[in-house]
Amino acid sequence: MKGKKGPYKVILSEKEVPTSWYNILPDLPAPLPPPLHPVTREPCTPEDLAPLFPMELIKQEVSEEGYIEIPEEVLAIYKLYRPSPLHRAYRLEEELDTPAKIFYKNESFSPPGSHKPNTAIAQAYYNKIEGVKRLTTETGAGQWGSALSLACKFFGLDLKVYMVKVSYEQKPYRRTMMETWGAEVVPSPTDTTNAGRAALADDPANPGSLGIAISEAAEDAVTHEGSKYSLGSVLNHVCLHQTIVGLEAKAQMEKFGEYPDIVIGCVGGGSNYSGLAFPFMQDKLKGKDVRFISAEPVACPTLTKGKYEYDYGDEAATAPIVMMYTLGHKFIPPAIHAGGLRYHGDAPILSLLTNKGYMDAVAYPQTQIFDAAMTFARTEGMIVAPETAHAVKCTIDEALKCKESGESKNILFNLSGHGLLDLGGYGEYLAGNLVD
Amino acid sequence: MKGKKGPYKVILSEKEVPTSWYNILPDLPAPLPPPLHPVTREPCTPEDLAPLFPMELIKQEVSEEGYIEIPEEVLAIYKLYRPSPLHRAYRLEEELDTPAKIFYKNESFSPPGSHKPNTAIAQAYYNKIEGVKRLTTETGAGQWGSALSLACKFFGLDLKVYMVKVSYEQKPYRRTMMETWGAEVVPSPTDTTNAGRAALADDPANPGSLGIAISEAAEDAVTHEGSKYSLGSVLNHVCLHQTIVGLEAKAQMEKFGEYPDIVIGCVGGGSNYSGLAFPFMQDKLKGKDVRFISAEPVACPTLTKGKYEYDYGDEAATAPIVMMYTLGHKFIPPAIHAGGLRYHGDAPILSLLTNKGYMDAVAYPQTQIFDAAMTFARTEGMIVAPETAHAVKCTIDEALKCKESGESKNILFNLSGHGLLDLGGYGEYLAGNLVD
Repeated sequence: MKGKKGPYKVILSEKEVPTSWYNILPDLPAPLPPPLHPVTREPCTPEDLAPLFPMELIKQEVSEEGYIEIPEEVLAIYKLYRPSPLHRAYRLEEELDTPAKIFYKNESFSPPGSHKPNTAIAQAYYNKIEGVKRLTTETGAGQWGSALSLACKFFGLDLKVYMVKVSYEQKPYRRTMMETWGAEVVPSPTDTTNAGRAALADDPANPGSLGIAISEAAEDAVTHEGSKYSLGSVLNHVCLHQTIVGLEAKAQMEKFGEYPDIVIGCVGGGSNYSGLAFPFMQDKLKGKDVRFISAEPVACPTLTKGKYEYDYGDEAATAPIVMMYTLGHKFIPPAIHAGGLRYHGDAPILSLLTNKGYMDAVAYPQTQIFDAAMTFARTEGMIVAPETAHAVKCTIDEALKCKESGESKNILFNLSGHGLLDLGGYGEYLAGNLVD
Repeated sequence: MKGKKGPYKVILSEKEVPTSWYNILPDLPAPLPPPLHPVTREPCTPEDLAPLFPMELIKQEVSEEGYIEIPEEVLAIYKLYRPSPLHRAYRLEEELDTPAKIFYKNESFSPPGSHKPNTAIAQAYYNKIEGVKRLTTETGAGQWGSALSLACKFFGLDLKVYMVKVSYEQKPYRRTMMETWGAEVVPSPTDTTNAGRAALADDPANPGSLGIAISEAAEDAVTHEGSKYSLGSVLNHVCLHQTIVGLEAKAQMEKFGEYPDIVIGCVGGGSNYSGLAFPFMQDKLKGKDVRFISAEPVACPTLTKGKYEYDYGDEAATAPIVMMYTLGHKFIPPAIHAGGLRYHGDAPILSLLTNKGYMDAVAYPQTQIFDAAMTFARTEGMIVAPETAHAVKCTIDEALKCKESGESKNILFNLSGHGLLDLGGYGEYLAGNLVD
């Protein structure tokens, strides 16, 4: 370490935690195309969505309020793991010998290990106060399923998780985590839903996919009294709840006396990146010069190779049709380690901002993101999730561009989750067995 | 949650992090019996220890200074994960319906997931500045080995870890973590040391033990130029470095406006508990009324069933002989999930304080500590390490005693590590397959 450094990180006091979420909808540069009913193809009404979601979340989905107050019960649980630290990555900067300043918001300290509880806790709360007794959801790699398991445990809701079968078999630790917090976890496709039975009829050895699991979970919710469905990404209200990340980060950057020139995040459905980016995007939409970059896998290149069009959110084409970048709702990406980035579409808000030129996107192959993750682990110590490693790779690339140009830019990325339950991927990498 | 609560946790600012460790040696109620040379049985001289440790650590081992300044280079790395939060466990209190106030110091946010880096970083630093090029160590469950791997990576030291063979095979994730941070990891017993070969000659299928691995690592260090050995618990300098935990906790309790009536920790070699307890013990030694309880497994009941006598620190009887509670250096405990609590002895300082009546000890069977861990996970969210679960069990027991007596005691325990790489144990528990 050259010379005296500091501060290494900024942690807000409990009193400084934001008490409202930032709603970007009224600030968007163009109206968001409405979701359409999957059968009628007419704009969805609140009544169309009511079998799936509680009314408060449906309202948030289209709210024109600039800020929405976080309920006290939600804040109380946030305080288990929030506020999260924002670090300056001095060691990574030195390793890269770059004049750039690198900052990262660390969302890995929640009990399930990622940003996902920020919305899980809010969703469980709104369901609870509207009398819902039971939630259903899907999970791929397991981050979302475990976050919702924790949230449901806190609010006394039952939860059934449809876990993509191949992950169910490969990730017993994630399943155990969900069961520890009281959820019922089943491998999808199951033979207990029409969507599942259809998938099994086509292929009895079907390994499952996120699209099928969504279809199963949604069907379960609408066919069971007292049940609703919960989604961990993509939707406007999910992005809204995640803005706690960016609101904290903004206050923390201010305490560093800095403002980011570039804001980076990995994108699957878009929730962690929306959460970090939107409070800064608010400034860009008012004219501030900030660059935004989404990092995604080449194996599922939604923003870099997808089309901006109306598509179904799920494989069985029963969920609302939304305007987004999509690879097609039948697209099944290869089984990369970044299971959380394997969704065929993207959050409509993020898609709109990308389409209008407010955000850029890049895609990386798996071996390159593990190279970046290794560099990060050996300088900053943290072992990041393979999903997060996409943001790390993008950050390193931008920092190296600064080295070439001599510019001292401020780069901020979202460390959305740790990789402690993904060490199998690191093991393959170290053994030289990892392929793109 | 009944009524309005707060604060849920206290986090010190980076500036409030203690800059010295607390050395309990000059405050002890009786002189610590000196370590003896394993062959001559005479008190060890600094020269006896020099082949194993750098001189600064040997000095710290017998220092009479009340506080020892933390080097700036060590503080800089501490700031990656320190200061750690101190939480008030409101949800656990409500679940137990106890008038007790429960607090926990959360040491699980370091990159390897436990308190172990507090001493690993300091040890790597002192070795580095004395020109050491390479360290050797042993590890059981892997927490210590991964902490030292991280520390050696930061200071550019090579590291060879002798990992107890049964853990090496059962815990590939811990091995991958160590390799991610650049360490060489081998299953012990190996055929590359006399101690290892002797163990294999007795039993070619020897599953290994911490005692054998210590013998191998120490032998490797003294027979290789430029190498020293590093131990993660037991020794005075290790307990010294861990006092950062208790010093922070004291400042945090003060911010809560409280002082603990009972201080609890799990004990294997004794490092995490010493770290939390000693700064509070300083007050007890001056007359303050505080109770201290060590929690250990019935499978390795060193403090509750062991003898207070001189014994070897390692299985091959080549390490110094120290005065401690011990089950005998040939004792091999059953393969409980709390691998970090399977050492036959205990820190000499902790043993002395226990023997003189300043500390109590309790022992729990494995099923009971997992019951407690489940209660904790379902109220406070955190999935704790099986080692830490012993402290949770003790805390719950004491809180329930308060419920009976109606006393509103303040209970503080050390959440020494998370259990994310121990979810196999939780899985066995949930499946009903866990035995004592």
